[in-house]
Amino acid sequence: MNAVPESEAPTGSLSDQELAGLDGWWRAANYLSVGQIYLMGNPLLHEPLRPEHVKPRLLGHWGTTPGLNFIYAHLNRAITARDLNMMYVMGPGHGGPGPVAAAWLEGTYSEVYPDITQDEDGMKRLFTQFSFPGGIPSHVAPETPGSIHEGGELGYSLSHAYGAAFDNPDLIVAAVVGDGEAETGPLAASWHSTKFVDPRRDGAVLPILHLNGYKIANPTVLDRIDREELDELLRGFGHTPILVEGTEPEYMHQAFAAALDRSLDEIAEIQRRARRDGHTERPRWPMIVLRSPKGWTGPKEVDGLEVEGSWRAHQVPFTNARDDGHRKILEQWLRSYRPEELFDTSGAPAAHIRDLHPLGTRRMSANPHANGGPLIRDLTMPDFRNYAVPVEVPGTGNVESTRILGTFLRDVMRENMSTFRMFAPDETNSNRLGAVLEVTDRTWNARTQPDDDHLAPDGRVMEILSEHTCQGWLEGYLLTGRHGVFSCYEAFIHIVDSMFNQHTKWLRTTNGIVWRRPIPSLNYLLTSHVWRQDHNGFSHQDPGFIDHVVNKKADVIRVYLPPDANTLLSVADHCLRSRQYVNVIVAGKQPQLQYLDMAAAITHCTKGIGIWDWASTDSGVEPDVVLGCAGDVPTMETLAAVQILLEWFPDLRIRVVNVVDLMRLQDHREHPHGLMEADFDALFTVDRPVIFAYHGYPWLIHRLTYRRTNHHNFHVRGYKEEGTTTTPFDMCVLNQIDRFDLAMDVIDRVPRLHRISAHPREHLKNKLIEHRQYIRTHGEDMPEITHWQWAPAAPPAGGGPGPVSTAEQ
Amino acid sequence: MNAVPESEAPTGSLSDQELAGLDGWWRAANYLSVGQIYLMGNPLLHEPLRPEHVKPRLLGHWGTTPGLNFIYAHLNRAITARDLNMMYVMGPGHGGPGPVAAAWLEGTYSEVYPDITQDEDGMKRLFTQFSFPGGIPSHVAPETPGSIHEGGELGYSLSHAYGAAFDNPDLIVAAVVGDGEAETGPLAASWHSTKFVDPRRDGAVLPILHLNGYKIANPTVLDRIDREELDELLRGFGHTPILVEGTEPEYMHQAFAAALDRSLDEIAEIQRRARRDGHTERPRWPMIVLRSPKGWTGPKEVDGLEVEGSWRAHQVPFTNARDDGHRKILEQWLRSYRPEELFDTSGAPAAHIRDLHPLGTRRMSANPHANGGPLIRDLTMPDFRNYAVPVEVPGTGNVESTRILGTFLRDVMRENMSTFRMFAPDETNSNRLGAVLEVTDRTWNARTQPDDDHLAPDGRVMEILSEHTCQGWLEGYLLTGRHGVFSCYEAFIHIVDSMFNQHTKWLRTTNGIVWRRPIPSLNYLLTSHVWRQDHNGFSHQDPGFIDHVVNKKADVIRVYLPPDANTLLSVADHCLRSRQYVNVIVAGKQPQLQYLDMAAAITHCTKGIGIWDWASTDSGVEPDVVLGCAGDVPTMETLAAVQILLEWFPDLRIRVVNVVDLMRLQDHREHPHGLMEADFDALFTVDRPVIFAYHGYPWLIHRLTYRRTNHHNFHVRGYKEEGTTTTPFDMCVLNQIDRFDLAMDVIDRVPRLHRISAHPREHLKNKLIEHRQYIRTHGEDMPEITHWQWAPAAPPAGGGPGPVSTAEQ
Repeated sequence: MNAVPESEAPTGSLSDQELAGLDGWWRAANYLSVGQIYLMGNPLLHEPLRPEHVKPRLLGHWGTTPGLNFIYAHLNRAITARDLNMMYVMGPGHGGPGPVAAAWLEGTYSEVYPDITQDEDGMKRLFTQFSFPGGIPSHVAPETPGSIHEGGELGYSLSHAYGAAFDNPDLIVAAVVGDGEAETGPLAASWHSTKFVDPRRDGAVLPILHLNGYKIANPTVLDRIDREELDELLRGFGHTPILVEGTEPEYMHQAFAAALDRSLDEIAEIQRRARRDGHTERPRWPMIVLRSPKGWTGPKEVDGLEVEGSWRAHQVPFTNARDDGHRKILEQWLRSYRPEELFDTSGAPAAHIRDLHPLGTRRMSANPHANGGPLIRDLTMPDFRNYAVPVEVPGTGNVESTRILGTFLRDVMRENMSTFRMFAPDETNSNRLGAVLEVTDRTWNARTQPDDDHLAPDGRVMEILSEHTCQGWLEGYLLTGRHGVFSCYEAFIHIVDSMFNQHTKWLRTTNGIVWRRPIPSLNYLLTSHVWRQDHNGFSHQDPGFIDHVVNKKADVIRVYLPPDANTLLSVADHCLRSRQYVNVIVAGKQPQLQYLDMAAAITHCTKGIGIWDWASTDSGVEPDVVLGCAGDVPTMETLAAVQILLEWFPDLRIRVVNVVDLMRLQDHREHPHGLMEADFDALFTVDRPVIFAYHGYPWLIHRLTYRRTNHHNFHVRGYKEEGTTTTPFDMCVLNQIDRFDLAMDVIDRVPRLHRISAHPREHLKNKLIEHRQYIRTHGEDMPEITHWQWAPAAPPAGGGPGPVSTAEQ
Repeated sequence: MNAVPESEAPTGSLSDQELAGLDGWWRAANYLSVGQIYLMGNPLLHEPLRPEHVKPRLLGHWGTTPGLNFIYAHLNRAITARDLNMMYVMGPGHGGPGPVAAAWLEGTYSEVYPDITQDEDGMKRLFTQFSFPGGIPSHVAPETPGSIHEGGELGYSLSHAYGAAFDNPDLIVAAVVGDGEAETGPLAASWHSTKFVDPRRDGAVLPILHLNGYKIANPTVLDRIDREELDELLRGFGHTPILVEGTEPEYMHQAFAAALDRSLDEIAEIQRRARRDGHTERPRWPMIVLRSPKGWTGPKEVDGLEVEGSWRAHQVPFTNARDDGHRKILEQWLRSYRPEELFDTSGAPAAHIRDLHPLGTRRMSANPHANGGPLIRDLTMPDFRNYAVPVEVPGTGNVESTRILGTFLRDVMRENMSTFRMFAPDETNSNRLGAVLEVTDRTWNARTQPDDDHLAPDGRVMEILSEHTCQGWLEGYLLTGRHGVFSCYEAFIHIVDSMFNQHTKWLRTTNGIVWRRPIPSLNYLLTSHVWRQDHNGFSHQDPGFIDHVVNKKADVIRVYLPPDANTLLSVADHCLRSRQYVNVIVAGKQPQLQYLDMAAAITHCTKGIGIWDWASTDSGVEPDVVLGCAGDVPTMETLAAVQILLEWFPDLRIRVVNVVDLMRLQDHREHPHGLMEADFDALFTVDRPVIFAYHGYPWLIHRLTYRRTNHHNFHVRGYKEEGTTTTPFDMCVLNQIDRFDLAMDVIDRVPRLHRISAHPREHLKNKLIEHRQYIRTHGEDMPEITHWQWAPAAPPAGGGPGPVSTAEQ
């Protein structure tokens, strides 16, 4: 690594004035950071600190903050010198006081929060509100101007930074990677983003690995491996690292400024060669390694124990700050920044400090990309109706619904070649969305071979076998105002459960922040779902992401289960146009029956739930039984059960209710999509048995409907964690959601069938036995299952069941 | 990297006989693998292939399998030559046919599955059962002898391998890392396990990075970066890589054998120096990079398209194998392995093939460590009663419960210094479990500094800031028959949601496999929980892991919410002794009230749920209201609500039911811990209002109790996703689980209070307003909240409420 030993101070590219300016700005930011953590009065130390000036509960993280401020100061110098369009992503986002201090110094804070003025009163409020009831969180949060990255859960800084840089050719995203964060899997994977960025089309990410040395209690791995080893590691990730290491501010300012200048020169040169000369070899992007003491500039020692440079500096370095001894240390610490030089008598930043930050939208705290909402360009949307599958008879055909969706997404892509991307862990083709490759390629900036399939540096289909990286890229892309879809095997979307949590929490919080504008929704397409893991078996069977999703606030989550291609198109169109949600779409990729023509699909999706008259026999009067269904496979099995039942009981009054928008089931007080009570009762009755076949874990339907009048009559079938490598129909049988079990459920629950159902019931039981025997011999489902189509008028199969009147006998 | 160009064939350390043997065994394993994917008849090709010999549905993954078999053959040679104790972990676990073939060749398969004999009939059954209904899964699965790693979800091979190697000094774990898997975050993080393995005490992991070139449709990143870049990357992870690259079997056998010998020599030397000379410098462990064609030895081309060496070889290389053209390709492919040389006329492996594998437990398919159950040494358990907190009056005191647990775990550690470890992402101390550092250190084999706290290569507290790596290590440790605890911030355990899924699926499946014996339970201690994220706020607040857990099969999951230190001790003791479960314990780390002395705690935990008589006023008669509670903070708020209510309504008949074992709430038909209906009704009545204060998302309680008689009277309070950085009590208020809201809930739901409750209700509302005003001024909770203790007989606070008779007026 290109390290300069501290003893050989760099000749100094910074003038004395520049150096003084940088250091002054840094001291100001540090002063304001310590003030936020500790003070609720006397912000400018106009008098000696008294106990009541100190907050009673001290909450915050000091350790990483001076490093974040140091980098901020230097980035500001470079922005001004080079007129850069730069964003700042802080992996160690728990260092919340830092960017808040910076935004206040830059004036942005007072612009978005007018009560936090740039004067003594405002500074007092700035200090008091931090980690204080009714105030702001302790982390870099949605409330922090200039940030798209919370950082409470570590690991996503680099993938967020790349997401922001994609399709923003003029943007440079400086991304601080904490050395704690660097131990996480998601961060470790995201270094390889270097193979997915195009220097011609995309902006640049400048990673700054901050070797702060310690986590909460442990040293960090990257700080304690050999310097050569770290250098090899970072080169192995595709970077050219530059090391800046030391403790003395003057030396460090000179060294970091030189490293930053060199990095920015290299970035400019890489981009110039790519854009002017069409140079296509993958560049080795520069990055900086900054090794500085944890809690830098804080107290060296408290109560005889080392603090600066130690894990003890991680949170609040000392906590009894209302007591005389510690209060004196606090005051000395604050005064060491010489606030009287930094702020004028009113409490505003002194003129020479104000002069140091860039202006307007060049301020990182006011960079437009960090508040993506106002930047959004609506997608140019082709008319999804043009992709409709013709459906002359419901319940027929044999179409891969996601393949149809692929043609629609292809044209969405074609119309939005700088604002829309698709993300998947190597599954776009497997998920039948390959049509999109007719208009773009997979993003790939590493070596290629002749047999490779649709790889190019400027591809817009982003595939890496890391769900974490896909999610992080997409989040960064959305948060900066662009659009995208993440398609994933259903079971493995759980890999990003926690990232989903953080993103929905971000959305939820921004709903309450007036200056944050809504951003495009995060759209999941979960295919290769639980019912069709033919190749893979039990490990690939888990429909629980929906359960995870509905734990989050109703105002930011939506769940859709379109049963066929036209409903999938309608739902996808709706989701792509929406804002500020996480949309989960679950749809199978295997050939399947089609039910609704486009007009019917639009009507059905608009309502989100509805009676399928063509499959019902209740003729508008009170039914004997309601068959509810949600999801493509449960819908097919439900219809097959209807057909079986009607063969036996032609005058049975069945009502089929299909659910596309799962949240329609919930109480309208719990979710904005929830049905009013009367509407729910009109669909599901108040007293008839309901057999509900659901795509996922059955108890979710109970949870969503437990307040409903007729809930005690709900009998739900779904995935109950029974599975292995077997046939598609056998998966249904194992979980008792198959047509025969559903038909038996109806027989068992409709009183007027009880006396006449012994024979049909036995017949159905025998069908299940026959199925089991058949598949164990033949290895595939019976043709009557595989080729089943909806044909309710068909006569009973030869030797099969005969009609039984349900009239009283 | 030490790569040998293929043109310069190595001089050849293998004799011709060794070479022929290796190649023969490899061909046999490949033949058996292809047979499993394709055939259901004519297994030895005694006649030309007919359509009915071919399975109707072809399901499996060929691409990675020949590589897995190649390595297996070579490891066998080394095991025999060196008498090694070796396990085989296959990251590309979707290559299921490979290890099944190997186990059959080694005889193990017929030992554990006597119907799969080593003859033609057995071979036919072996082929047919693969990915066939009623047969075995397509992946390396619990059903596969010799495996502890499913591999369906990629990313955990290395962490599993290290987990197996810890405390097994004689074991070498060969771990194949797929180049697809290598893109995942969890795998990327786990390379740094090199800093957490002690060459004196632990076994060795030999990673074999298999550059197979392609994923499902894309090339892999590590296959397409420069050779030097890859070499730097792996050295940066702390390894000395040796590259073996090529396509010609003879060359590759020689090259791989040489690389393996060199690696094993280096491992032996590292261990010798460490164990004999006490050499403590962190070794640079050897590893092998194997670059070979995907689908190696398979058809070069099908229908004019490249297959071997291409992504088309990933699953089944061609699928219409019942048709004449493809069937001919299949037959040629199978015959290319020359089965007549490999199997005798009975269908058993020929004698010269049999001679090639190691014997008895040296066979990797029979290595005892791969079936940890029989190896278990029970923990030597100190008597948890000795750590009891004295509780003279319930609801008093101020104890950090996890700190008490720490003293118990310290002594568990002391007594089990080679079979017990603790895992945490840098949080052992933060979670108040630091007492364990009195008897051991944190595992750390990288550079140390004087101020470091309890770091040593032979430490037994494993901390890396990667929940994935912690979980993977622990799983590997448990699967090989040892014991452990994973302590984690509650919100961030979601990071391993998907790993939890895979582990519980493994446990669940092994419950049905007679030769797999139960392994020690995976114990989670979730502390730093949702209610006490004082430093961190919203991003750290998520109690949903419990919801995720209870989606899995009831026979493998348990959830405990001990409200104080003595119940925590009792629960922890129970969990550490248990087998074959995932136990989730949620317990706070902050100072809290204590309720039960040890005798009462044991009784309470044994029942898992019970009436707290000392807090109840129903005197065994029918109560007016039942207050249920689960979790430490909800329990405290519930008791405080009782006290408030009794101050106003001294003759109100309140029953307090505390739940430790959450699954007691569920129907006994759904969970083995579920209460019988009568028992549930005896606790919660059949008609009285129940106000239930629950630690997590409130709907889980509805889900668990929806079948209960009195469910419609359940009113549940819990976390409803409201939070930020605020005071502990304010978190309760935001989510309406605080004492005042709970008391108002009671007032609103007990009919006989309605007419007399206007004044008390207004008083409680005012208390909430007072609280809000107080914290916004003072920044901390009111002293009456912070210092509240249970004292039901105390007179009402001055100026506070006065008693109101609930008798009819």
